[in-house]
Amino acid sequence: MSEFNQVTIVKKANIYFDGNVTSRTVLFADGTKKTLGIMLPGEYEFGTAAAEVMEILAGELTVLLPGETEWKQVTANTTFQVPANSSFRLKVTQVTDYCCSYLS
Amino acid sequence: MSEFNQVTIVKKANIYFDGNVTSRTVLFADGTKKTLGIMLPGEYEFGTAAAEVMEILAGELTVLLPGETEWKQVTANTTFQVPANSSFRLKVTQVTDYCCSYLS
Repeated sequence: MSEFNQVTIVKKANIYFDGNVTSRTVLFADGTKKTLGIMLPGEYEFGTAAAEVMEILAGELTVLLPGETEWKQVTANTTFQVPANSSFRLKVTQVTDYCCSYLS
Repeated sequence: MSEFNQVTIVKKANIYFDGNVTSRTVLFADGTKKTLGIMLPGEYEFGTAAAEVMEILAGELTVLLPGETEWKQVTANTTFQVPANSSFRLKVTQVTDYCCSYLS
Protein backbone atom coordinates (compact mmCIF):
# COMPACT_ATOMS: atom_id res chain seq x y z
CA MET A 1 0.00 0.00 0.00
CA SER A 2 1.76 3.14 -1.19
CA GLU A 3 -0.72 5.59 0.33
CA PHE A 4 -3.36 5.78 3.05
CA ASN A 5 -6.78 7.00 1.98
CA GLN A 6 -9.54 8.77 3.90
CA VAL A 7 -7.39 9.38 6.91
CA THR A 8 -6.84 12.30 9.25
CA ILE A 9 -3.37 13.73 9.54
CA VAL A 10 -2.27 15.88 12.45
CA LYS A 11 -0.66 18.98 11.01
CA LYS A 12 2.09 19.55 13.54
CA ALA A 13 5.07 17.21 13.57
CA ASN A 14 6.26 15.18 16.52
CA ILE A 15 9.87 16.27 17.05
CA TYR A 16 12.40 14.25 19.07
CA PHE A 17 16.17 14.33 19.57
CA ASP A 18 16.59 17.93 18.34
CA GLY A 19 14.75 17.10 15.13
CA ASN A 20 16.90 14.10 14.28
CA VAL A 21 13.77 11.98 14.67
CA THR A 22 10.47 13.45 13.50
CA SER A 23 7.09 11.99 12.63
CA ARG A 24 3.55 12.82 11.58
CA THR A 25 0.51 11.19 13.14
CA VAL A 26 -2.07 9.52 10.89
CA LEU A 27 -5.47 8.59 12.35
CA PHE A 28 -7.67 5.95 10.74
CA ALA A 29 -11.46 5.68 10.69
CA ASP A 30 -11.28 2.45 12.73
CA GLY A 31 -9.63 4.32 15.59
CA THR A 32 -6.13 3.02 14.96
CA LYS A 33 -3.05 5.22 14.63
CA LYS A 34 0.19 5.15 12.72
CA THR A 35 3.10 7.54 12.57
CA LEU A 36 5.18 8.20 9.46
CA GLY A 37 8.66 9.29 10.44
CA ILE A 38 12.22 10.06 9.53
CA MET A 39 15.32 9.20 11.56
CA LEU A 40 18.67 10.73 10.70
CA PRO A 41 21.86 8.80 11.43
CA GLY A 42 22.48 8.49 15.17
CA GLU A 43 21.73 6.34 18.22
CA TYR A 44 18.35 6.49 19.87
CA GLU A 45 16.37 4.79 22.62
CA PHE A 46 12.58 4.75 22.53
CA GLY A 47 9.99 3.61 25.03
CA THR A 48 6.69 2.06 24.00
CA ALA A 49 3.25 2.32 25.58
CA ALA A 50 1.27 0.21 23.09
CA ALA A 51 3.02 -2.54 21.16
CA GLU A 52 4.41 -1.30 17.85
CA VAL A 53 5.17 -2.67 14.44
CA MET A 54 7.96 -0.68 12.78
CA GLU A 55 8.04 -0.95 9.00
CA ILE A 56 11.21 0.39 7.40
CA LEU A 57 10.40 2.09 4.09
CA ALA A 58 13.94 3.22 3.28
CA GLY A 59 17.27 3.43 5.09
CA GLU A 60 19.48 1.22 7.16
CA LEU A 61 19.76 0.60 10.88
CA THR A 62 20.36 -1.96 13.60
CA VAL A 63 17.96 -2.57 16.46
CA LEU A 64 18.36 -3.97 19.97
CA LEU A 65 14.99 -5.31 21.03
CA PRO A 66 14.00 -5.62 24.70
CA GLY A 67 15.44 -8.70 26.41
CA GLU A 68 17.87 -9.37 23.59
CA THR A 69 21.64 -9.01 23.63
CA GLU A 70 22.30 -9.05 19.92
CA TRP A 71 21.80 -6.09 17.59
CA LYS A 72 19.89 -7.02 14.44
CA GLN A 73 20.38 -5.43 11.04
CA VAL A 74 17.19 -3.96 9.57
CA THR A 75 16.87 -2.90 5.94
CA ALA A 76 14.21 -1.35 3.73
CA ASN A 77 10.95 -3.26 3.29
CA THR A 78 11.29 -5.20 6.52
CA THR A 79 9.45 -4.85 9.82
CA PHE A 80 10.14 -5.54 13.46
CA GLN A 81 7.76 -5.64 16.40
CA VAL A 82 8.26 -4.13 19.85
CA PRO A 83 6.19 -5.21 22.88
CA ALA A 84 4.08 -2.77 24.90
CA ASN A 85 5.63 -0.98 27.89
CA SER A 86 9.18 -1.69 26.88
CA SER A 87 12.08 0.10 25.28
CA PHE A 88 14.32 -0.53 22.34
CA ARG A 89 17.52 0.94 20.95
CA LEU A 90 18.37 1.89 17.39
CA LYS A 91 21.60 2.71 15.60
CA VAL A 92 20.61 4.44 12.38
CA THR A 93 23.37 4.40 9.76
CA GLN A 94 21.44 5.80 6.77
CA VAL A 95 18.51 8.25 6.69
CA THR A 96 15.55 6.05 7.57
CA ASP A 97 11.93 6.47 6.51
CA TYR A 98 9.51 4.44 8.60
CA CYS A 99 5.86 3.69 9.27
CA CYS A 100 5.03 2.80 12.88
CA SER A 101 1.74 1.02 13.60
CA TYR A 102 0.43 1.07 17.16
CA LEU A 103 -1.32 -2.12 18.22
CA SER A 104 -4.10 -1.97 20.76
CA MET B 1 -6.91 23.91 11.55
CA SER B 2 -4.84 21.47 13.58
CA GLU B 3 -5.51 18.43 11.41
CA PHE B 4 -6.58 17.55 7.88
CA ASN B 5 -9.52 15.18 7.57
CA GLN B 6 -10.49 12.72 4.85
CA VAL B 7 -7.23 13.11 3.02
CA THR B 8 -4.80 10.74 1.35
CA ILE B 9 -1.22 10.61 2.56
CA VAL B 10 1.58 9.16 0.50
CA LYS B 11 3.42 6.70 2.67
CA LYS B 12 6.98 7.29 1.50
CA ALA B 13 8.72 10.50 2.49
CA ASN B 14 10.25 13.02 0.14
CA ILE B 15 13.90 13.26 1.19
CA TYR B 16 16.19 16.18 0.23
CA PHE B 17 19.62 17.42 1.30
CA ASP B 18 20.69 14.10 2.86
CA GLY B 19 17.55 14.00 4.98
CA ASN B 20 18.00 17.50 6.40
CA VAL B 21 14.79 18.44 4.63
CA THR B 22 12.01 15.85 4.46
CA SER B 23 8.30 16.00 3.78
CA ARG B 24 5.14 13.94 3.36
CA THR B 25 2.63 14.55 0.60
CA VAL B 26 -1.03 15.07 1.50
CA LEU B 27 -3.66 14.89 -1.25
CA PHE B 28 -7.07 16.50 -0.86
CA ALA B 29 -10.41 15.48 -2.35
CA ASP B 30 -10.53 18.70 -4.39
CA GLY B 31 -7.34 17.71 -6.20
CA THR B 32 -5.05 20.07 -4.31
CA LYS B 33 -1.83 19.02 -2.64
CA LYS B 34 0.15 20.07 0.41
CA THR B 35 3.37 18.81 1.91
CA LEU B 36 4.09 18.66 5.62
CA GLY B 37 7.81 18.89 6.21
CA ILE B 38 10.75 19.34 8.53
CA MET B 39 13.90 21.33 7.88
CA LEU B 40 16.91 20.97 10.12
CA PRO B 41 19.26 23.92 10.59
CA GLY B 42 21.18 24.72 7.41
CA GLU B 43 21.06 26.69 4.17
CA TYR B 44 18.90 25.52 1.31
CA GLU B 45 17.75 26.64 -2.11
CA PHE B 46 14.48 25.38 -3.57
CA GLY B 47 12.90 25.76 -6.97
CA THR B 48 9.16 26.00 -7.49
CA ALA B 49 6.96 24.72 -10.30
CA ALA B 50 3.55 25.84 -8.98
CA ALA B 51 3.33 28.86 -6.73
CA GLU B 52 3.60 27.93 -3.05
CA VAL B 53 2.40 29.21 0.28
CA MET B 54 4.76 28.18 3.06
CA GLU B 55 3.23 28.18 6.52
CA ILE B 56 5.73 27.90 9.35
CA LEU B 57 4.29 25.78 12.17
CA ALA B 58 7.36 25.86 14.42
CA GLY B 59 10.97 26.92 14.13
CA GLU B 60 12.96 29.92 12.97
CA LEU B 61 14.47 30.86 9.65
CA THR B 62 15.19 33.65 7.22
CA VAL B 63 14.11 33.62 3.59
CA LEU B 64 15.40 35.34 0.45
CA LEU B 65 12.50 35.53 -1.98
CA PRO B 66 13.03 35.73 -5.75
CA GLY B 67 13.88 39.23 -6.95
CA GLU B 68 14.60 40.48 -3.45
CA THR B 69 17.93 41.43 -1.95
CA GLU B 70 16.98 41.42 1.71
CA TRP B 71 16.63 38.32 3.86
CA LYS B 72 13.41 38.29 5.88
CA GLN B 73 12.99 36.73 9.31
CA VAL B 74 10.20 34.15 9.48
CA THR B 75 8.83 32.76 12.71
CA ALA B 76 6.19 30.26 13.79
CA ASN B 77 2.59 30.91 12.74
CA THR B 78 3.54 33.08 9.79
CA THR B 79 3.43 32.37 6.06
CA PHE B 80 5.24 33.54 2.96
CA GLN B 81 4.39 33.03 -0.69
CA VAL B 82 6.70 32.04 -3.53
CA PRO B 83 5.81 32.57 -7.22
CA ALA B 84 5.67 29.70 -9.72
CA ASN B 85 8.79 28.77 -11.69
CA SER B 86 11.16 30.58 -9.39
CA SER B 87 13.60 29.77 -6.63
CA PHE B 88 14.07 30.91 -3.08
CA ARG B 89 16.72 30.52 -0.42
CA LEU B 90 16.35 29.65 3.25
CA LYS B 91 18.65 29.86 6.23
CA VAL B 92 17.11 27.66 8.91
CA THR B 93 18.38 28.44 12.40
CA GLN B 94 16.00 26.26 14.45
CA VAL B 95 14.32 22.97 13.53
CA THR B 96 11.42 24.08 11.38
CA ASP B 97 8.06 22.36 10.91
CA TYR B 98 6.15 23.60 7.87
CA CYS B 99 3.07 23.13 5.73
CA CYS B 100 3.52 23.95 2.04
CA SER B 101 0.39 24.52 -0.08
CA TYR B 102 0.74 24.29 -3.84
CA LEU B 103 -1.42 26.76 -5.74
CA SER B 104 -2.72 25.82 -9.15
